[in-house]
Amino acid sequence: MKIVQKDFRVSSKQRNEMIDITSQVSSIVSQSGVTAGDAIIYCPHTTAAIVINENADPSVPHDILLTLEELVPHYRPGYRHSEGNSDAHCKSSIVGGSKQVLIKDKTLSLGTWQGIFFCEFDGPRSRKVMVQVRGE
Amino acid sequence: MKIVQKDFRVSSKQRNEMIDITSQVSSIVSQSGVTAGDAIIYCPHTTAAIVINENADPSVPHDILLTLEELVPHYRPGYRHSEGNSDAHCKSSIVGGSKQVLIKDKTLSLGTWQGIFFCEFDGPRSRKVMVQVRGE
Amino acid sequence: MKIVQKDFRVSSKQRNEMIDITSQVSSIVSQSGVTAGDAIIYCPHTTAAIVINENADPSVPHDILLTLEELVPHYRPGYRHSEGNSDAHCKSSIVGGSKQVLIKDKTLSLGTWQGIFFCEFDGPRSRKVMVQVRGE
Repeated sequence: MKIVQKDFRVSSKQRNEMIDITSQVSSIVSQSGVTAGDAIIYCPHTTAAIVINENADPSVPHDILLTLEELVPHYRPGYRHSEGNSDAHCKSSIVGGSKQVLIKDKTLSLGTWQGIFFCEFDGPRSRKVMVQVRGE
Repeated sequence: MKIVQKDFRVSSKQRNEMIDITSQVSSIVSQSGVTAGDAIIYCPHTTAAIVINENADPSVPHDILLTLEELVPHYRPGYRHSEGNSDAHCKSSIVGGSKQVLIKDKTLSLGTWQGIFFCEFDGPRSRKVMVQVRGE
Repeated sequence: MKIVQKDFRVSSKQRNEMIDITSQVSSIVSQSGVTAGDAIIYCPHTTAAIVINENADPSVPHDILLTLEELVPHYRPGYRHSEGNSDAHCKSSIVGGSKQVLIKDKTLSLGTWQGIFFCEFDGPRSRKVMVQVRGE
């Protein structure tokens, strides 16, 4: 089995932002030489997350961020964490900091409308994304 | 290492529906010949998801769908996506489109009450589920 | 490829509680002898979950539990499940019962602030956590 890991950086420009990282992940998969297996996209941050959803119409990430904002507002009575970013920790915990995509014929098996997004919930910041590709 | 992938289709009958796919996944695991490892259950759609939860009492999936519906209503002021299914994209992003189950002794290591569900959030539709089984 | 699985138990003391299990998972990874690969932390229960988030400041898990409690209250009109723990099934489905962490240089590639939590949503109970370490 082959295990290849590559990291790259992402720069967010807003407090809440979904950044399409499909092409970066795809190129790591191509370069890995793995024909069949999977890729793990891992975010080592506690106020960000990874989402797989539609990247064709930019209104979809807009609506996802809007929904998360309404469910988890920036300030909520009762928050104890003093850094003012409890909402970002909560969004990160709900959405999840890593996702997995299958690889077949040397290509990510994403659905027609699926793209991979880095979700920033406490930007702007410079962030790291880790990608591990495993298989044969 | 062995990597076996099989896909199957699921037909939903309602807009929101949780469909038990445990037996389909189990039979792919049995046929794979993998003794120890894991299975990834991957949904290549952006308005559906995979959940692992109780499949003994049908009131549990009912209550999960009810909760998701109250948190993410079909229409929300501010949605921009013109297809009228922003809620489904949001539910899919929150719940997540893939899950992983461990395999031990040629069997899925599901807990006593755990079943695997395909979650439809924008049905009725015909959908695809991908299962990759990996291990020894 | 090496596949090592070890389980351990966790005892919760409250109905909702986040229990830091980073050290237990780390020691299973160290003992596995795996240099590069990943660890799957799997919860075989339907009213609990696994979260990766900040374990430095205890106010972060407090705020995560508070948010989940406000989004998914213990009782909601319309719940059908008769055991009175529908909220726990919903939280488990939203947060997710397993997480994956990369392994590099024989060590979990957790970010500076990341810890692994077992999330109890229907305690107090004695629970099982499964850890599968895979790689080279």
